[in-house]
Amino acid sequence: MEPEVVKEVSDLKISNGEEDIVDPWNVTSTSQEGVDYDKLIKRFGSSKVDQELLDRFEKVTGKPMHHLLKRGIFFSHRDVHSILNIVEQGKSFYIYTGRGPSSDSMHVGHLVPFIFTKWLQDVFDVPLVIQLTDDEKFLWKDLTVEEVLKLARENTKDIIACGFDVNKTFIFSNLTYMGRCPNFYQNVVRIEKCVTFNQVKGIFGFGDSDVIGKISFPAFQAAPSFSTTFPFIFGDTRVPCLIPCAIDQDPYFRMTRDVAPRLGYPKPALLHSTFIPALQGAHTKMSGSDSNTAIFLTDTPKQIKTKVNKYAFSGGQASIEEHRKLGGNTKVDTSYQYLRFFMEDEDRLEEIKKSYESGEMLTGELKKILIDVLTPIITEHQQRRQKVTEDLVDEFMSLRPLKFKHSPNLS
Amino acid sequence: MEPEVVKEVSDLKISNGEEDIVDPWNVTSTSQEGVDYDKLIKRFGSSKVDQELLDRFEKVTGKPMHHLLKRGIFFSHRDVHSILNIVEQGKSFYIYTGRGPSSDSMHVGHLVPFIFTKWLQDVFDVPLVIQLTDDEKFLWKDLTVEEVLKLARENTKDIIACGFDVNKTFIFSNLTYMGRCPNFYQNVVRIEKCVTFNQVKGIFGFGDSDVIGKISFPAFQAAPSFSTTFPFIFGDTRVPCLIPCAIDQDPYFRMTRDVAPRLGYPKPALLHSTFIPALQGAHTKMSGSDSNTAIFLTDTPKQIKTKVNKYAFSGGQASIEEHRKLGGNTKVDTSYQYLRFFMEDEDRLEEIKKSYESGEMLTGELKKILIDVLTPIITEHQQRRQKVTEDLVDEFMSLRPLKFKHSPNLS
Repeated sequence: MEPEVVKEVSDLKISNGEEDIVDPWNVTSTSQEGVDYDKLIKRFGSSKVDQELLDRFEKVTGKPMHHLLKRGIFFSHRDVHSILNIVEQGKSFYIYTGRGPSSDSMHVGHLVPFIFTKWLQDVFDVPLVIQLTDDEKFLWKDLTVEEVLKLARENTKDIIACGFDVNKTFIFSNLTYMGRCPNFYQNVVRIEKCVTFNQVKGIFGFGDSDVIGKISFPAFQAAPSFSTTFPFIFGDTRVPCLIPCAIDQDPYFRMTRDVAPRLGYPKPALLHSTFIPALQGAHTKMSGSDSNTAIFLTDTPKQIKTKVNKYAFSGGQASIEEHRKLGGNTKVDTSYQYLRFFMEDEDRLEEIKKSYESGEMLTGELKKILIDVLTPIITEHQQRRQKVTEDLVDEFMSLRPLKFKHSPNLS
Repeated sequence: MEPEVVKEVSDLKISNGEEDIVDPWNVTSTSQEGVDYDKLIKRFGSSKVDQELLDRFEKVTGKPMHHLLKRGIFFSHRDVHSILNIVEQGKSFYIYTGRGPSSDSMHVGHLVPFIFTKWLQDVFDVPLVIQLTDDEKFLWKDLTVEEVLKLARENTKDIIACGFDVNKTFIFSNLTYMGRCPNFYQNVVRIEKCVTFNQVKGIFGFGDSDVIGKISFPAFQAAPSFSTTFPFIFGDTRVPCLIPCAIDQDPYFRMTRDVAPRLGYPKPALLHSTFIPALQGAHTKMSGSDSNTAIFLTDTPKQIKTKVNKYAFSGGQASIEEHRKLGGNTKVDTSYQYLRFFMEDEDRLEEIKKSYESGEMLTGELKKILIDVLTPIITEHQQRRQKVTEDLVDEFMSLRPLKFKHSPNLS
């Protein structure tokens, strides 16, 4: 529905220089408030999630809006109106999301797309495929195939613990699913035949000294956007696809959307999220490779408390007196920003904002609220994860038809 | 065993310019005698198949030498002495060869590596894997996935008709085997992580406007050189590999040999063949895409006769009188050259050479001899091919342990 701004390879290039750096491997900003997302929408040629889309979402689903959508955390999109059209026509689509399993322990930021994806699956009652790009992590990091396979399986347990319905969800790792269904590789080569080195150079910034695995990898992330990659779910029906992901993954899907019509597929629709900032502030996103910037899903209540109190960047003033007078800055305060992601209660969040900005609430109090919100989310996650058996992992990863309501266009 | 001349990427580059062009996609020579193979050995840094190697081959196998080896059609090698060492130690190796299924009908030139490979399998009693690079043909040609899959299966029937032992032979197409065993893709990414775009640019001449599938394809041809790509045959044992192939495929395996030690594998050994010339002469090799340059395995006796009589380049003189006086030139005479490939009887071939070069034998007589040699080879091939059932194709392509004698180093 949005004007298709991105047509030329040159438009697809990720700008560097003085601007925020946002690509699949780097997210940095020179601003304390983090990445300028409005600028990013212009640069990437996507569309803003505006009030009209939110209203339509609520009307079509008949469900109250998810806070991650309402608060602009999922702030940008491509073609989501066309997905809503499909739903209104009583037809089906499917959801595709993923994760790069680079570390054993996921952090709270990693939960965000999965929390939102689960909500999407629940309100639309559609099949969901989740890709673990263990091949990507093998190619980019100093890890062996055996190590990334293990990480993919461990991460799968965390994903399952988010509460996905096993009857509607297929989870796969590239390095294993590739060897279990020829359709995956066959769609990969179809995509690879449509994309030149010049194009991936422009889109991803690859250079001549990059290994050939990196150069062809984008086709492996693109392929699950085409439903025939999963014949046991969709047969040979070309079902439209919606991809919720962080905005740094957009380059992959700009490429995919460019290729889709040439292969006779609908362009995948996208819903982009902002990044959860590092504890130290929004110059960078939370990263699993630096344990002090992140709150892990394996952290104990004590560790959570210590990390928030010690590292969470404060938007408060230098002294209590000054704070009472000038108030805190919620735009740069990590604790407040985290509450936007994890506190569901809209009224309470608004109260906190007012109270902190007016100087009534102090940084210490705000941090305590965050600790009280995060701790049960993480401990409950840990409890659910402990109940994820190896058998259940195998079941989620097994090739099987999925059950879902709206499937009139499936054979 | 040979000095490893090829060490640097710059050494791996295929020379163009005024020299013969020999790469996986082009073979042309400005000389009527065809490619200068001695020069090619120097340029590629391989070793000549010399009398010492031939003698050792005969001693180790205890079998008479195959005419394709004795006559210098398999003229170049890498590390074949190390394979013979392995055999002397009572250990096993395996053979890997392949074919790019670009056309429905194979020609007699395509038989040559398979005739030789079958002999190798018979004398060494070792497992054999045969790769059909349907992905390559899809990426390089104007063909669909469905078309190349069909071509791969049709070509498999011709390969089976060469008489391979189903108990010792695994035939696979990349586009199907990829989806049946995760080890293939896992070895592919291991290789892809060791090779940069700069390197494939140097080795294969790829450029920025080439599609990303071409750029990563070399890893897919390399992977079967490592025995762990076939766990159902070799378990996780790293078994040495011997690759008989035409010299134009050497770039793939120079790359493979460069990567092997870094992945802890033995470098594959190679036996290189010359090209069978086009009917019109040795400037180019016989090609399936130009039906007048090739004798196809589907040709009728009448077609064979017509093509040889009409197109086979003659090394004879302009008139009978001149021919009787000066004699014919066997070096450029296509009919004689074909006899070197297909006439097994050494004494008779020598007689023909003498007789033609002395002017006693005329071109017409030489062509008749070739027709008499080729016709039964092709009609018998057709009869054997007709007996190849779909079930037998499935059996050759099924993932299973292979049976062979020398397997003390296999678990």
